[in-house]
Amino acid sequence: MRTIDWIDGAVEIIDQTALPSDIVMLTLSRHEELIDAIQRLAVRGAPALGVAGAMGVALIARDERFRDDRPAALEAATAVYQARPTAVNLSWGVRRALAAWDDGEQAVLDVALAVRDAELANSVRMGELGADLVTDLVGDGASVMTICNTGGLAAVERGTALSVVQSLHERHVLSAVLPLETRPLLQGSRLTAWELERLDIPFTLIVDSAGPYLLSRREANVVIVGADRIAANGDTANKVGTYSLASAAARLGIPFIVVAPESTVDQETATGGDIDIEDRGSMELIEFHGRATAPSGSRTINPAFDVTPVALITALVTESRVVRYDRGETL
Amino acid sequence: MRTIDWIDGAVEIIDQTALPSDIVMLTLSRHEELIDAIQRLAVRGAPALGVAGAMGVALIARDERFRDDRPAALEAATAVYQARPTAVNLSWGVRRALAAWDDGEQAVLDVALAVRDAELANSVRMGELGADLVTDLVGDGASVMTICNTGGLAAVERGTALSVVQSLHERHVLSAVLPLETRPLLQGSRLTAWELERLDIPFTLIVDSAGPYLLSRREANVVIVGADRIAANGDTANKVGTYSLASAAARLGIPFIVVAPESTVDQETATGGDIDIEDRGSMELIEFHGRATAPSGSRTINPAFDVTPVALITALVTESRVVRYDRGETL
Repeated sequence: MRTIDWIDGAVEIIDQTALPSDIVMLTLSRHEELIDAIQRLAVRGAPALGVAGAMGVALIARDERFRDDRPAALEAATAVYQARPTAVNLSWGVRRALAAWDDGEQAVLDVALAVRDAELANSVRMGELGADLVTDLVGDGASVMTICNTGGLAAVERGTALSVVQSLHERHVLSAVLPLETRPLLQGSRLTAWELERLDIPFTLIVDSAGPYLLSRREANVVIVGADRIAANGDTANKVGTYSLASAAARLGIPFIVVAPESTVDQETATGGDIDIEDRGSMELIEFHGRATAPSGSRTINPAFDVTPVALITALVTESRVVRYDRGETL
Repeated sequence: MRTIDWIDGAVEIIDQTALPSDIVMLTLSRHEELIDAIQRLAVRGAPALGVAGAMGVALIARDERFRDDRPAALEAATAVYQARPTAVNLSWGVRRALAAWDDGEQAVLDVALAVRDAELANSVRMGELGADLVTDLVGDGASVMTICNTGGLAAVERGTALSVVQSLHERHVLSAVLPLETRPLLQGSRLTAWELERLDIPFTLIVDSAGPYLLSRREANVVIVGADRIAANGDTANKVGTYSLASAAARLGIPFIVVAPESTVDQETATGGDIDIEDRGSMELIEFHGRATAPSGSRTINPAFDVTPVALITALVTESRVVRYDRGETL
């Protein structure tokens, strides 16, 4: 089962908001439905958003409303890549597919399918390179702490950071995985725990704020995370909570590894300070499935992401290279 | 309205599990009911637990079941102080009241009422001393980050760390308060936000894992927390997540202050490594009011507290002194 795929002229996704209770597949025939799904986080994760961006343009290319109206089509494509501001892969996927626009509907679709297939191959390759690196750093017996969902649900299959976990498991050198539940939307407990269970990989779930403390107790010997945007200097935007793990890991001398496809590297963003951080408003904090968790008028700051300075990161693993920041290597 | 009080021969508490939706008062006439309330966290917070411990013995002293059965009474008192293992104040309150046992029921009750009154006076004094220290450290315009609930609901009135916030507000030198929501039981969003709203103190609620990141963005210039047990060397057990804030604050050069009554200092515990940390099991993580938030069989580590090494703490404020760890002072 793929997180996102192209079936019979439409985008098919697993609705991630229904997990872990229900497995619901959604068929999205119009780009507006895809935008809604992206904004509701029914589809999410940097690599999956890259595929979604390209497939969004494929939906526009086969939509009769835009057949002879190039400005309207461009406007629609812009709306797709603006659905979420922080993930660079989304706009990258849109741009990739748009580049084939003049060659027609089939050419655009071919690009989208190629993006999908490339993400799949990238996930396999990141898993292998990452597992090699982890074994270099901590030997056999890796205990991995991770945040959010970076598994198959964030990609097409396997994922980024969780692909490394899966490779370590397949090599029989994985001792433990501690996923953080990842408030406010619980991608760690709803999605990552669900994926690990399906993969038959034992895991131990923890609240986010216990992460740094359990690192200090050496319950994990390596932190592996994904990325939503990597600036040219290596500063990395990822799910909020990543910085707290990186800060603690640096203090404790525990390796901290980022795993992401090359498409996540944004050479046009110089440093982390230039990354636009999405604030998702107060509703995610003040209620949970209709039940009040805070006074109704509460003001919040609810950043979806944070920025980890490259100085706190040991290495970046992509599908094509390992960049050892800790040895002075740069992007 | 007091968090805990003695009314007509029984203990009266605000049921903190019902907040912020409902204000429910509970009347507890037997020590078993009090133990249940402590274990459900209907009453919680180190100073309030000190009062609860003493009043628990007062309930036993007036209970006919134990009138002529000293061993049974002692066993009942032991059950009260074992209701939660980490908070030293609970056993301290029990021991204080037990010391008056041989002088009869009224003497025990007098001790319990004296503990209540002392906690009230302590809260006022901690607020004043703490506000003085904060102003010394950051000048006027304090922006305070805090975790869990350390307000009136954790004490009798005013509290510990939140008493400092209240004093800063009364002195018109408070710029902002950022309470962490405090997973898994959301004492920050359910209780602290509710208290701040009642006090007319504007606040900005955040998820726990955003705390360290927002410190790096300088959204707060001081971190103020409570404590559940302080070892003789100054290592401090407090709500899980405290360590992550302390670790980040130390890295960023932001003052980190612990506020707790002297009764929280446990000279019989040498260091943080000797503190027994309560694990509250998996249910708090895998469901929320009956709705699954993780696969039902998920294993968890769910520490109620963590331990912050004294090296990360700037100062301790009690009702009688300020200990500047950062200047080499010791307990």
